[in-house]
Amino acid sequence: MKKTWLKKYAEAIVKVGANVQRGQDVIIDVATDQAEFATIVADYAYKAGARYVRINFSYEPFSILRINKECIDSLSELKPFDKSMFEYMVERLPVRIFLISENPDGAKNLNHAKSAQVAQRRFPLIKSYREALENKYQWTIAGIPSKEWAKKVFPNLSSHQAQEKLFEAILKVARIDDNPIETWRIHNKNLKAHMDYLNSLKLDYLHYRSSNGTDFKVWLNENVIWLAGGEKTSGSDIFYNPNMPTEEVFTSPIAGKAEGIVHASKPLSYNGQLIEDFYFVFKEGKVVEAHAAKNEPLLKQMISMDKGASMLGEVALVPFESPVNQSGILFYNTLYDENAACHLALGIGFTNLYKDYEKYSKEELTKLGINDSMIHVDFMIGTADLLIEGHTKDGQIIPIFKNGTWAN
Amino acid sequence: MKKTWLKKYAEAIVKVGANVQRGQDVIIDVATDQAEFATIVADYAYKAGARYVRINFSYEPFSILRINKECIDSLSELKPFDKSMFEYMVERLPVRIFLISENPDGAKNLNHAKSAQVAQRRFPLIKSYREALENKYQWTIAGIPSKEWAKKVFPNLSSHQAQEKLFEAILKVARIDDNPIETWRIHNKNLKAHMDYLNSLKLDYLHYRSSNGTDFKVWLNENVIWLAGGEKTSGSDIFYNPNMPTEEVFTSPIAGKAEGIVHASKPLSYNGQLIEDFYFVFKEGKVVEAHAAKNEPLLKQMISMDKGASMLGEVALVPFESPVNQSGILFYNTLYDENAACHLALGIGFTNLYKDYEKYSKEELTKLGINDSMIHVDFMIGTADLLIEGHTKDGQIIPIFKNGTWAN
Repeated sequence: MKKTWLKKYAEAIVKVGANVQRGQDVIIDVATDQAEFATIVADYAYKAGARYVRINFSYEPFSILRINKECIDSLSELKPFDKSMFEYMVERLPVRIFLISENPDGAKNLNHAKSAQVAQRRFPLIKSYREALENKYQWTIAGIPSKEWAKKVFPNLSSHQAQEKLFEAILKVARIDDNPIETWRIHNKNLKAHMDYLNSLKLDYLHYRSSNGTDFKVWLNENVIWLAGGEKTSGSDIFYNPNMPTEEVFTSPIAGKAEGIVHASKPLSYNGQLIEDFYFVFKEGKVVEAHAAKNEPLLKQMISMDKGASMLGEVALVPFESPVNQSGILFYNTLYDENAACHLALGIGFTNLYKDYEKYSKEELTKLGINDSMIHVDFMIGTADLLIEGHTKDGQIIPIFKNGTWAN
Repeated sequence: MKKTWLKKYAEAIVKVGANVQRGQDVIIDVATDQAEFATIVADYAYKAGARYVRINFSYEPFSILRINKECIDSLSELKPFDKSMFEYMVERLPVRIFLISENPDGAKNLNHAKSAQVAQRRFPLIKSYREALENKYQWTIAGIPSKEWAKKVFPNLSSHQAQEKLFEAILKVARIDDNPIETWRIHNKNLKAHMDYLNSLKLDYLHYRSSNGTDFKVWLNENVIWLAGGEKTSGSDIFYNPNMPTEEVFTSPIAGKAEGIVHASKPLSYNGQLIEDFYFVFKEGKVVEAHAAKNEPLLKQMISMDKGASMLGEVALVPFESPVNQSGILFYNTLYDENAACHLALGIGFTNLYKDYEKYSKEELTKLGINDSMIHVDFMIGTADLLIEGHTKDGQIIPIFKNGTWAN
């Protein structure tokens, strides 16, 4: 991977994605084999004025070994230094940069049941920290190709060639060109136009239909807005882009109000495994049936994690002509694949989309219809012939998507 | 590097080096590019009954970037989670395993002056933790070849070949054979015989002479013992081997009592730079002159770090026929190179060598002659014709080393 492009990408991650401000702390999460790129990102964070930069390195085979070998008590407890780290984060609100490079097949040997149990036991211990942090700090997720990931995407190329090719694709779909800062300014502006239009419609529900069998309605919350592209931190109004790339306009629907059948249009990579050819039947907002041609038990485990895991937290609209879809590549990674197509997410919704959300407690927002859960899993439902109609409370029908893309 | 040998080595590190006990916590420190080996070590730690294993990954170019770019206040302060980590260590006494693989030339771009300043400012903040931990927990240091290190040792080989060859050499000098546990049992027994003999002599001072110009006397403390090979933790009497390899029998001399000239017999790798062809003149226990053909300013900075940095903390005897010397390899790393030859160390001494050391405070032990400093830097003085005579208080002269090896 050419150093000049690594630098351009790193700079965009710091300036466009995280929008690091002078005097802020920055924490970069990255796999051990991407230490070099993380260090380039750290360098740009210092250039942007970061006071302190920390890199949290992880190595998936060790993380898996730990879960498989360690007793569940030790795995589940918050160590004192973990607590201290959360307290520090709540106090200093460090910017978080997540550089992801996971091997889609990396978690094959993981004890998934134990892992889920650990997540369930840890969740209440970290819940208060998560809530205290929610919407308060800038964060961004960007990908960088590991050998294993690249070989999964391009199995017929050498490791080196596959990494080069995946990196090229990543740059392209993340809109990293000669002047990514200007390109992203325009891109954010276009996304905002769609977002403003959707917000102006005040829709009651969306009706999805596709030749793959999807026929599904999901109700929207009149106090919840559509969002796209960048966001602002709630305390200090700093604009940042949580995802690079981002092509979606999305909202949180009413957690308990959805009906019909939804067929996934792409496989889902979950806990390092691929769930393929699956569909859900919704009744009164909940998944009442889940079927998959491959890894159905994992799919069922996923929606059983907690009460909110079988309800929707997100509805997202992505046009068929998105760069990710144009690339023709299945990335085996949600960050990319979710930007190829319209999708839904099971699990926790976005509280910051609720009007004046800062006035409400988390519990109140859950009661007001924003789903709560320890999971948030996107799955793709967009197809080439997807039709989405918006229904207003006074009976108007407004075409939103036709043939898989924006109707307006 | 063959998996079977990686496993045998990892097992020996856990069982012989650290001697991990059932229920103990284990922290492994390692560079990001050695994550795979660290995970094998972690696996053996779990097999030995470890309750919790943590890996601290580091990446030298990032560590250097941080020091060069970050403000000195942020670098010097103990972050709350660092404090919490120290408190945890004092409470739980986790076993520490340090897997070292440093590029001998890795710190070329480091701002050494700033780095030294940071160490000086951090030292008082961590001193109480260090003292609370001293001699209380098992720890071990073992090497694993990085590409850069291997290329430094074998510049004419390919990276891969160099790594293979350095790994072979590491296994050989660390006495990792088909049954390293039995081999180390015998090795520790032999070292103990030399140690017991030296302790029985009750020497007043040692007199070193060599054809390279060394003519040097260092006085010994009657209450300080010689030690070799393994040690025991002070609280729980667990036997462990702090260094793999270890060939030395060593003690802490009287900090303020040494006279004469000492020529280094091998270069010193310090802060990632090589100090070559150097010698010290000692007067009343202190370095009063320091000269080096290469990197003299760094040498002088080193001995100026604090009061104790110009006085001796260690005297170590290593025979000329040690496996490290037999290998004929300059490892550019103290762990190995110190086991090739007799050496001295400037800086902090070993308080646990003082008789009934647990009865004394750190300050009392300093007054009793054990040197204190933030540094501890070994340098080699052993040569093929080194003569060491031991002088007793009643005027006896006992040959200790002749022609570079044990006289007895």
